[in-house]
Order: sequence, then structure tokens, then C-alpha cells
Amino acid sequence: MNTRQLTELGQQLRVDSVRAAAAAGSGHPTSSMSAADLLAVLFANHLRYDFDRPAHPGNDRFILSKGHASPLLYAAYKAAGAINDTELMTFRRLGSRLEGHPTPRRLPWVETATGSLGQGLPVGVGIALSGKRLDRVGYRVWVLCGDSEMAEGSVWEAAEHAGYEHLDNLVAIVDVNRLGQRGPTRHGHDLDAYARRFRAFGWHTVEVDGHDVDAIDRAYGEAVSTVGQPTAIIARTLKGKGVASVQDREGLHGKPLPDADEAIEELGGVRDLRIEVRQPPAARMLHAVRAGHLELPRYETGDEVATRDAYGQALAALGTARGDVVALDGEVSDSTRAEFFAKEHPDRFFECYIAEQQLVAAAVGLAARGWVPYVSTFAAFLTRAHDFVRMASISGAGINLVGSHAGVAIGQDGPSQMGLEDLAMFRAVHGSTVLYPCDANQTAKLVAEMAGCEGVRYLRTSRGGMPVLYGPNEEFPVGGSKVLRVSPQDRLTVVAAGATVHEALKAAHALAADGISVQVIDLYSVKPVDRRALREAAEHTGCLLTVEDHHEEGGLGDAVLDAFLDGRPTPRLVRLAVRTMPGSASPEEQLHAAGIDAESIAAAAKLLVENAIVR
Amino acid sequence: MNTRQLTELGQQLRVDSVRAAAAAGSGHPTSSMSAADLLAVLFANHLRYDFDRPAHPGNDRFILSKGHASPLLYAAYKAAGAINDTELMTFRRLGSRLEGHPTPRRLPWVETATGSLGQGLPVGVGIALSGKRLDRVGYRVWVLCGDSEMAEGSVWEAAEHAGYEHLDNLVAIVDVNRLGQRGPTRHGHDLDAYARRFRAFGWHTVEVDGHDVDAIDRAYGEAVSTVGQPTAIIARTLKGKGVASVQDREGLHGKPLPDADEAIEELGGVRDLRIEVRQPPAARMLHAVRAGHLELPRYETGDEVATRDAYGQALAALGTARGDVVALDGEVSDSTRAEFFAKEHPDRFFECYIAEQQLVAAAVGLAARGWVPYVSTFAAFLTRAHDFVRMASISGAGINLVGSHAGVAIGQDGPSQMGLEDLAMFRAVHGSTVLYPCDANQTAKLVAEMAGCEGVRYLRTSRGGMPVLYGPNEEFPVGGSKVLRVSPQDRLTVVAAGATVHEALKAAHALAADGISVQVIDLYSVKPVDRRALREAAEHTGCLLTVEDHHEEGGLGDAVLDAFLDGRPTPRLVRLAVRTMPGSASPEEQLHAAGIDAESIAAAAKLLVENAIVR
Repeated sequence: MNTRQLTELGQQLRVDSVRAAAAAGSGHPTSSMSAADLLAVLFANHLRYDFDRPAHPGNDRFILSKGHASPLLYAAYKAAGAINDTELMTFRRLGSRLEGHPTPRRLPWVETATGSLGQGLPVGVGIALSGKRLDRVGYRVWVLCGDSEMAEGSVWEAAEHAGYEHLDNLVAIVDVNRLGQRGPTRHGHDLDAYARRFRAFGWHTVEVDGHDVDAIDRAYGEAVSTVGQPTAIIARTLKGKGVASVQDREGLHGKPLPDADEAIEELGGVRDLRIEVRQPPAARMLHAVRAGHLELPRYETGDEVATRDAYGQALAALGTARGDVVALDGEVSDSTRAEFFAKEHPDRFFECYIAEQQLVAAAVGLAARGWVPYVSTFAAFLTRAHDFVRMASISGAGINLVGSHAGVAIGQDGPSQMGLEDLAMFRAVHGSTVLYPCDANQTAKLVAEMAGCEGVRYLRTSRGGMPVLYGPNEEFPVGGSKVLRVSPQDRLTVVAAGATVHEALKAAHALAADGISVQVIDLYSVKPVDRRALREAAEHTGCLLTVEDHHEEGGLGDAVLDAFLDGRPTPRLVRLAVRTMPGSASPEEQLHAAGIDAESIAAAAKLLVENAIVR
Repeated sequence: MNTRQLTELGQQLRVDSVRAAAAAGSGHPTSSMSAADLLAVLFANHLRYDFDRPAHPGNDRFILSKGHASPLLYAAYKAAGAINDTELMTFRRLGSRLEGHPTPRRLPWVETATGSLGQGLPVGVGIALSGKRLDRVGYRVWVLCGDSEMAEGSVWEAAEHAGYEHLDNLVAIVDVNRLGQRGPTRHGHDLDAYARRFRAFGWHTVEVDGHDVDAIDRAYGEAVSTVGQPTAIIARTLKGKGVASVQDREGLHGKPLPDADEAIEELGGVRDLRIEVRQPPAARMLHAVRAGHLELPRYETGDEVATRDAYGQALAALGTARGDVVALDGEVSDSTRAEFFAKEHPDRFFECYIAEQQLVAAAVGLAARGWVPYVSTFAAFLTRAHDFVRMASISGAGINLVGSHAGVAIGQDGPSQMGLEDLAMFRAVHGSTVLYPCDANQTAKLVAEMAGCEGVRYLRTSRGGMPVLYGPNEEFPVGGSKVLRVSPQDRLTVVAAGATVHEALKAAHALAADGISVQVIDLYSVKPVDRRALREAAEHTGCLLTVEDHHEEGGLGDAVLDAFLDGRPTPRLVRLAVRTMPGSASPEEQLHAAGIDAESIAAAAKLLVENAIVR
């Protein structure tokens, strides 16, 4: 398109943004209007995208990181012929695909859910990594960012990663409209403040008037021709551009325009320009990857093996069998044992250094391109990426997260390194799967199993060695459990997972010597839980004693409740969990101090028997 | 100290680090050895600190952001006479104050718990802000960082905040030892890579040989004399410096030296040099702040008021009554209503822009200086700071966090803006308090009440207006609840909080018309829960129906279980919660779609009655 057409198109996108927000009675038209020219030029002259085939491997990828400017995105979809005006007017209504913030669950052209700021660029880095290192298709990733979100550290994790990896297939477009939600941003229209920062992280930068369509066009051209560096286009814009009553004014964030009809007139009225978006070049389908026979590692029962070791070995084996499996590390692969994968499959291993937000975001980006990512770091440090995990679930992203060094059982390093909130965090994620194995063969099977689940999957591993309980041929379906001890004389059921399974077995052994028989269940699938097994246990003994190496809230003890929430009689419940703040001590001392070792379990069981609380 | 003495002191700190780790059989001596000269010069010649009076208002503040180098810190404490050699040898043992990573819970000279990387500098920014804007005492904040942690976005949130606020009382010392845990860092010994980044964010930088004590001494002097900018000292060091078998070698992170005795000999043997740490200048005590009469806002019962409005108004009133209350915003104060505080108390209002990690870290820093911080942003976005909240609880920091826009009730904006995991996240934090008010008077009282709690306190507010249920004189103790409806004919108890309290009351009204009487409890204190009231309800009706605008895991439904975990009979439990992924819709449509509105509650109750599940 030429200058006049582009200018007209920009105005059309503004008008349609105003109309959509007016129809909805809410939304962010002023944030859309600032970026309208940026998007018009991109869609009309640079983006290569087949709207009929969003899965086309050669498609460029566009991410609206400032997701609240969704009216602009939908207006551009309309101009590209992907949706019609009737649908545009359903914006933000019940059942509409056009949500307040775009999500790929509903719209096939959206790469990742946005709306939590500072996430679009890190996910874009993941997609750009896929393009550079795996797909080897020449697509470009365009990310439209707001200026306010430049305050998020995750943006600079992304800037660091992209600069270091020389991702010249990545373009960040920063819509510097000077105004955040509650007032001016830190740097206002000081474009160089942003450019300086990007340059320091190794980016090529272009400063541009974001309402000069020719200058924008040249800037995009410069980005496309820049080799060896990602490009940041820093664009000076005006929030609410084109309508005098709102342009560059405070207090108008996230509100429909006061007088939409007048604004539309001022913008030159409704138009119906069509963009012929450039088609992507022919490209082979992604992931014509081998799928071979899976040879999981096998462990001898009775051997002492850490589940983190089994994770690393199983992941390496899975990588051998499946060419679509990739692994990502937060600079702790020697501890999580992801290094076993790295050694065998260096081409599919991504070192993300100590930047857990970018780590998870890269996985989301890789999953968007069809890869099956396994992310691992300490369970405790996955809390750093909680918001990214939350947004991944909104995207419907299929990612595997593995947290090592679970619980007080890690020993001397102390509470900062102990995952004690991770089960609660991952259980509360919509549609998640939460697994917590207690032995090496179980871990190996679950590592393979989790790849087939939907949504966010979490596996919790332990630092120290634990005896192998199960044979290598045993199966562990997600949603299952294992009864490790049962007899007609059982007075109560001990429900454990991971490290506490072994403590529970020791306790059961000691109690048996005292004439007290207890059932022991290994609840390796924390979400979904094995409702049938728990209900049978409730009928069998009438009392469940849960034991977990996790804070008492939101973990195993809460999870068992899922089996009894339909109004059926609930068994008596007793919970052992970490209730105090640990310090440094040996693993055994830690388990004892927390009251979750064999001795504590046996003592609790005896108390219940003595007080005739169990039958 | 002169050159020779400083060099000797550096060697002593190395030797003592090696000895402590050897005695413990674990720990991070090589990471300590790289920074030994940096710490020696700081403690000997620049830090102003009275170890006998850690609360002295004039004390400089030192933060070991690379908390794993704790042997070095403890060796310096020994050299300063704060601990003796016998205690140093208790490193990492059960009951010792000298934990694997330092915490202020155990050691009075530690400002904040570290061990999760990238947190020391953001907390240091909080303390420096306190010094500049509130205490107005001339102390300096020194933060010793690792090079690996420079990959964390939180470091750049801190760099941005400190640069923008011209915090020339803040010094970051970056120990560039080239080696992370699993191998080389991104930038190795490229000091300028770090310096460029800091300069881009407005810092003064000094590059230095981190083993040249005179150069270090000059660099600290330059930092002290730099006005208007924070200073970053980028120091080239060698991991394991001084012991040839480990110096600058990979694979030796977090391990005692292979041969401690030989290493000690190579380092010149055990020494017992004493540092006379400079005394701080005389300074007035902090917070000689007024404590006046608290005039909370009062609302008329029946009026429609959003709890976020009540939060903002109550916080402003609390700020008037208490001079030690400060407020921090993540650039959403118009939405959270923290703007009411900002208008009345601009001197105690901290705008942190969209950088939630720095937001919470600043609060931790301010709390460390004795202030009572209230942090507010959307509940959903507090997930961004989960790791900082977790570490705050390890610090024992007294911080108030307020999350607005709870649940699907926000309406059209969609899931990215909805707090649906926040109750689970905050319940699982050790020692936390979790509050969720349903009306304006209750909110106001709880805002004041939470200031008196220990540890991390969380208050959840709602976007939309809700009828005021309680009079302004009603009291709401933490750990309490309110019975809003009760009669001898009650068939079950509906337990609700926040938005669902109003739905529960409507449902109870409708059910009464159908001859079904139900009890309604407002469980505004989610943690701790009112065990007595829940047990009474269990005895009264035998069935609790929980209703919450939150995912089904880890929230209100799990919280009620806390009342029944001692093996007593558990009531029947039925849970209504958000189980699907919401889209955009009106608040009423959202509550209905999630199955947590009055109609859904009434339907669930009827089903329980019809199926004779309740008596």
C-alpha cells in the first residue's frame, strides 16, 4: 500500500477500534489508536501470513503484547478479511471469540494469550528460537509492545536472551504513547531511554515517528534487513491519536470514547479498506520428526536412586524416541539432571540462564510452534514464573514443568531452596496435571506419560536418593495411585507421595510391630487424584492420614478432598505437613523437625488409635 | 586498613570460608573466595555499622544478594567480632544461626533473606528509598551480587527504579567470577557487558580488578562520592581464587574444597585478624512518627460500594492516623484505589510502575527499616511476585499485600485480569494471613486490622459495587467469621466470602421461599479460619456448601478443611468454584457461567435436599 492508502487504513483501524469499544461499552480504544499506524503498515506491507492457514509453517508470527489494545487487533483482522464487521461488533460479549484480551484458545491467529504485560516479548523469543534453531523456516516474529510494560523485568530477560542468541528474526515494536494506565510513564516520549536500554542488550534500534506511515515502512524494512541482531523499533505515538478530545490526555485509559459518533466523524468516518496480507513462502511442514521406540531407563528395586536422576535419564530417552521433545534449563541442569538430555540432544537443549520468566515463556513459544517442551529448575524457583504459568494455562499451552529439590528433604541449603509451595501453585492452575513420584521407575514412566496430557503439567522431583519400590514394567497412569500395603485389620490409611511414601512404609512397618495395621497409598497423581482409590480407602478404614513434604495448605492434604466433594460422607482426616520455618539441617533432621518422618507418622497413628478416633 | 592488611584479611575470609564449608560438609566456598577481597575492603574501610546495635538508624546496610556465599559473610562477621570461631564451625548444622543462606529471622545483621537470586538488589532499592525519602538518614546500602543473577529480570527492574530515583545511596557490587552453577555465564569476564547495561539504566559504573584491594578501595570511594546516581562496581574475579586446584575451574560450585587442609596452607594458613568496623554517625531514631486517632471511613448499610474503594479510603485514613504507613503501587492505583492514599500522603506513596517484583521487594526493604507497607495491584498480577512473597516470609517481613479485581466477577476484561489463584498462593505462604471482605465497612476494619498481624498479610478486594451488609461499628477480628443467617431448620450451611456472600444471601432467600432453610457464613478470614464457627456449623447442619470466586484448588473450599484436621468427624462437603476457563462477559454472566451465582447455589442446595444427602 502507498502512503495515502496506509494513512487511510490507519484511520479505519482507529474507527473500528472506537466502534468495537463503543458497542461493548468497555475496552481500550485510546491504546489502540496510538498503535493503529504501526499495525496498518505491518499488516499491509510486511507481515507474511495466510489467515486461512494459521498453521502454515512459513507464516510470520504476530504477538500483541499490549493485549488490552485488542480492538486494534480485531480491527486489523477485519481489514484482512479474517472476521467480518458483525463479529467485530460482538467484542467482549458472552460467547464471542473477541475477548477483552486475545487468546489462542478462541482465535487461531493468536500465538499466545496476552493481557498480563511483559509476556509477549519473552514468548516471542521462544518462537523466534524455534524458527532459528529448530524449524529453520525463515519466518519473522513481530511483537507489538506498550511502553509501560518496559518496566517489567521479564522484558529485559527477553532482551538479554534475544540479543545473546542473535535473533535477527525477532522485531519488537514499542508503542511509546507516553501514558500508562494511571498517568505518564517513567520516560514519557524519551525514545532514546528505551533505545539505549535495548542497545545495551545487543539489539539494533530504530527510532521513528509512529504516525508517519512512510517512516514506519522504512523502519520495518530496516528491521527485515538487519542481520545478526534483533531489532527494536521505538515509535513515538499519541494515545488516542486522531481525536482531539482524547488525544495525548490522561485519565482515558481503558474507557470507550465519550462520544463515539463524533470521534468517528473526526476520524473521517467508517471505511471498508481491505488488506491483501502477503502470503508466506512455501515451507515444509514442521516436525517431520522421527518417532522411534521409547527405551526408558530401568532401575532395580531396592537400589537408591534420586527421582531427579531418573527424570534426567528418562528425558534423555524420551528425546531419543521423540524428535519433537525439547528441554529448557534455568542454569541448574547439573542439579535438575536436565544435563543428561543436554549431552545427548544439544540441538534441542535451550539454556535460559537464571531467568525463570523467560524460561517458561520460551517453552510457551516453543509449544506454540508444536514442540513438546520440558522446563526444569528448582521447584522453589518456578514460583518466579507463576504469572507465566497462569497465562500459559489461558493460552492452553501444552508445557511440561519439572521442579526439583522438593521440600525440606533437601537438607542443609535451607528454606530459600526448598519447594514448599509448588503443589499449591500448580494445583490452582486451570486444567493442570500435578505428579509427584516416589521412585525412579515411577518417575521415568511419568516423564513419558505427562507428554500426552493437556495443558500445564507439573512433575515434582527430589534431591536425595530413595529406594526403588516398583519394577520397571509397572504402569502409572495419570489420575492413578498405588496401594502399597493393605490388610483387613487396617485401622487407618496413610496417604503419601514422593519422599513421604518411604517414611509411611517405615512407619507402617514399625506400627505393625506394635500390633497396629495401617494401609499405605502412594498418591503419585496429586491432580487429578484417584477418587476411586481414596473412596475405597475411606470405606476401608474411615480415616485418612495425609503426609506431605510441603506446606500444609494447597498440597496433598487438600488434594484428597477432591474425592469427597459431592456431598458423600467424608472420612476423618488428619494431616501431617510442614508447619514451621525450616533452617539448615540434614535431610533426616529436617523430616523429623517438620514432623513428617516415619517416627512422626507412627506417633500420629498411635495417638489416633489410643484416643479411639480410629476404629 | 592498608594494602597488606586488606590482602591478609581477604585471605583470612577465604580460609574461614573453606573451614566452615569443610566442617559442614557442604556449602559454597568457591563462590565465597571470589568475593573475599571485595568484602574485606568493604568491611574494613567503608561500611559504617555497629554490630552491637543492628537497629542503629545510622547504620549502613549490607545485603549479600548471592546468598549462597554465606561462608564469606559469616567469616566477615567473625572478623568483625560479631560471632566467634566456635559458632562459625556450626555452619549449616541443626539449630545453628548460620544457615546455608542467611536470614534475618536468625541473625540480627541480615537485612533480608537471600538464596533466591536476583532479590538482594530490589530489596536494597527499597531500603535505599527509605533512606532517601523517609528516614532521611545518610546511610548507604551496599549489595553484593553475583554475575549469574544479572540474568534475572528483577535485577533490571531494580536498576530501572534506582536509576530513575537517583538513589546515590545505593551501591551494587557485582562479583563477576565468570562461572555459574553449571558452567560459564553468558558474558564471562566481559565486564563492560554488565557496565553497559547498568549505564543504560542511569547508573554510574566502575570496572575493577576484584582482587586488587587498592583498586577496590578506590572504587568504593568513587561510589561514595558519586552524587545523583547509584553506582555499580563491576569486579573481575576468579571463582575459588587463591587455591590452584579450584581457581577459575568448572564443576566446583556448591562443594567443599577437595582438600581443605592443603587449601588452607596454600592460602597462608589460619589467621585471626580483627576488623574495627567504622561506627555509624549519630542519627535520630527512626519513625518518631505520630500515631493519631484512626477515623476509618463509614458506609451506610444497603449502599453499593466496591471493596476496592473502601480499601483506598481506609488506607488513606490509616495513613493519616499512622505516620509509619506507606503505600506502593504497580501503576494501577486508579484501579486499586491506592490513589486515595497517594493524594493525601504523596510523601509516603511509592510508584513502582509495572514491575511487581520490585514492587514487593521495595515493600520488604521498607519493612526492614520499620515502615508498614501496603502494596496493591491486581490480584492476578501478584503472581508475578510469588517468589518475592515466598522469600519475604522466610525473612519474616511484615508486609501487607492487597489484590484487587478478584475472580470472574470483574466481567469483560477476561481471564488474564482475573485473580483466580491468589487465595491458593497466599494460603500456602508460611505464617500468612489471608482476608477476603464482602463489604465496605468490613474492608475498612480489616485494612486497619491487618497492620497488626505478623508476617505476610493478604487482602483480596473486588472491582464491582456490592451492598454494604455490616454497620460501621461491627468488629472483624482476624480468624473470625460472621453468621449471616441461621435457624434451627437449616438443612445445610453455605460458606462464602467476598462476592459470593451476596450470592449466598440471595440464594438463601430464594430457598426459604421454597421451604428450604440454609445457614450462611461469611468466612472473611480465609487464613486463619474460624474453626469454632465451622465446627458449630458442622454440628448444626452436617453439610458445608462452599462457594468461591476462585479456582477450586487451594481457596475457600480447601480452607474450611483446616477446622476438621484433628481426626474429628468431618461434615459432608460440597464445593462450588470456578472450574472452567472464563471468557469475556458481564459480571453477572460470569458468575452464572462459573456456577457460583445465587441460582447455582440454590440449585446445588436443592439437589442435596432432593437426593436426601442433607438431613
